[in-house]
Amino acid sequence: GQILNSTLEQQEVRKRAVEAATQLMKAETGSLLLVDENKEKLYFEVALGDKEETIKTITLDLGEGIAGWVAQKGKHLIVNSPKKDARFYIGVDGRTKFKTRNLICVPVKVKQKVIGVLEAVNKQDGADFTEEDLSLFSSLADQVAIALDNARLYQEQEVMFFQTAESLADAIEKRDPYTGGHTQRVTLYSLAIARYLPLKPIEKKWLKIASVLHDIGKIGIEDQILKKPAQLSPEEYGVIKHHSDLGAEIIDHIRQLRDIVPGVKYHHEKVNGRGYPKGLKGEDIPLLAKIVSVSDTYDAMTTDRPYRKALTKEAALKELKRCGGSQFDRKVVEAFMKAYRNGEI
Amino acid sequence: GQILNSTLEQQEVRKRAVEAATQLMKAETGSLLLVDENKEKLYFEVALGDKEETIKTITLDLGEGIAGWVAQKGKHLIVNSPKKDARFYIGVDGRTKFKTRNLICVPVKVKQKVIGVLEAVNKQDGADFTEEDLSLFSSLADQVAIALDNARLYQEQEVMFFQTAESLADAIEKRDPYTGGHTQRVTLYSLAIARYLPLKPIEKKWLKIASVLHDIGKIGIEDQILKKPAQLSPEEYGVIKHHSDLGAEIIDHIRQLRDIVPGVKYHHEKVNGRGYPKGLKGEDIPLLAKIVSVSDTYDAMTTDRPYRKALTKEAALKELKRCGGSQFDRKVVEAFMKAYRNGEI
Repeated sequence: GQILNSTLEQQEVRKRAVEAATQLMKAETGSLLLVDENKEKLYFEVALGDKEETIKTITLDLGEGIAGWVAQKGKHLIVNSPKKDARFYIGVDGRTKFKTRNLICVPVKVKQKVIGVLEAVNKQDGADFTEEDLSLFSSLADQVAIALDNARLYQEQEVMFFQTAESLADAIEKRDPYTGGHTQRVTLYSLAIARYLPLKPIEKKWLKIASVLHDIGKIGIEDQILKKPAQLSPEEYGVIKHHSDLGAEIIDHIRQLRDIVPGVKYHHEKVNGRGYPKGLKGEDIPLLAKIVSVSDTYDAMTTDRPYRKALTKEAALKELKRCGGSQFDRKVVEAFMKAYRNGEI
Repeated sequence: GQILNSTLEQQEVRKRAVEAATQLMKAETGSLLLVDENKEKLYFEVALGDKEETIKTITLDLGEGIAGWVAQKGKHLIVNSPKKDARFYIGVDGRTKFKTRNLICVPVKVKQKVIGVLEAVNKQDGADFTEEDLSLFSSLADQVAIALDNARLYQEQEVMFFQTAESLADAIEKRDPYTGGHTQRVTLYSLAIARYLPLKPIEKKWLKIASVLHDIGKIGIEDQILKKPAQLSPEEYGVIKHHSDLGAEIIDHIRQLRDIVPGVKYHHEKVNGRGYPKGLKGEDIPLLAKIVSVSDTYDAMTTDRPYRKALTKEAALKELKRCGGSQFDRKVVEAFMKAYRNGEI
């Protein structure tokens, strides 16, 4: 299922909230400004209308202009004669050639703290904004605050999930003395490859998780084999090979991660059918797995092993190309090459 | 940091959204009904006013009443003369002694799918609901839909986090052949204990995560020691003891889980100062760690080990009591006893 919200979607959601609020105020236009805590500035997160691009280049200091005053004081404000109000900042109108007749501006607060400002500009039909407008507009600002806070909590939780998965992958990796940083590098390579393939945002998220968790099954491989400081016997190699199935089994218990299972299970398949665990061929191998396979192999080739030195980057690239169409999917290798040429790998 | 939203908070959020929508409609009261997909029913998630408790006992079939019609058709409806509308269901008024004069009712949709219905009842001042009201009310229903969908995504993600942590804890546990189901049981016991201690909701969440991850450090213990089918030598025991520090190190990398670290790091401390890794005493041991300690030890006592059989529940309880004040915190043991007597353990 679609478990991960995108930031773009959140921006769309905020835009629609400001549109609804502006409509409710019977205003010509409206905007949502957010507080940037580090820089102690207000920036336009949403600005309706055709001046949006220009407005978004403007930032206000806390205390500057009506919005800056509202953000600093945490109080609402109706300004029906901006020219007579010393707090009014003419700069925005100046840059956008817009004429502010009147405006209503309320703080957006989460747990007593101002995180932004919602404003509606120019009441339609030349009327003034009223106390009744203020009451409604404040209600809407509370809803926006809740939505913003929920989005923040969601993103924090998403980061927590990735950090937990990465920490555990690291810990598992540490049992394998030859793979320091492997998971991180594979994830980096996979995401670079993905930029040159037609993947949907949700598929990129899946790819990221699959890359982080691709070797998770090594948790079930005994030390004697995993830590052997020499090339493995065929029997021992058979045990190691089991890690992709073991990893898939672990992840299969996590309902929301079902879409990641194929990426983990089949990251050692080869397009010529000579991989494991299933000997899948060509199009039968899921794309996520094909990408992880290229990232994983490239990293293995370019790092030292107990029984051989690392290849140079150039030699590894040559090997990827040579095996495009036999071991690797040709398109994935091409995407890798593009990412490499653009300095992303 | 506070990373995990509570369901109660979400209910409060929805209530405030319905209040704002009702105020905007200048209506006497309002409610939010949600679709229960399994039962194909509508139930009142929010119902404003003093009839809330009564109304919440009512469910509607899809198609039943105005709200049922709106949910089934996915279309909005203004009913200014309910008595003349065959779709109007008199049952709600009947049970609540409320008199519906008129109402406005719009579907709450996520990606074309009706997940609920928002309604406002009795326009103030005896007026009728208008087409303009409908347009505003639909905007608000869209905002409510977004908020509901975000809450759902958040909860899905929370479940994903716990399932991932549990799956990995299970996988790590499988390396230790004597502890099948240990993590799950410890988590169950900890949450049962927590019901009889004054913990905040967020602390209960931390406790749950700490219980799931308490043995995560065993990932770094070599097979030879972890899997030894006999009692350990003092040196080997020294290595095993390192697992609480290792676990804390792993979790310490996860910013959002910092509050869980003490629960993992100190779950083998004893209140008399004879535990490890620090030899902390009494009040210096964090409460989460004290709870995990009791859960962990009780489970160890009541399951078989290679070098001894499990104790009976009664014998284990006696042992917990005997060690209250020396090994264990007395209050935590008391809470355990209460949970046990109430059949929760």
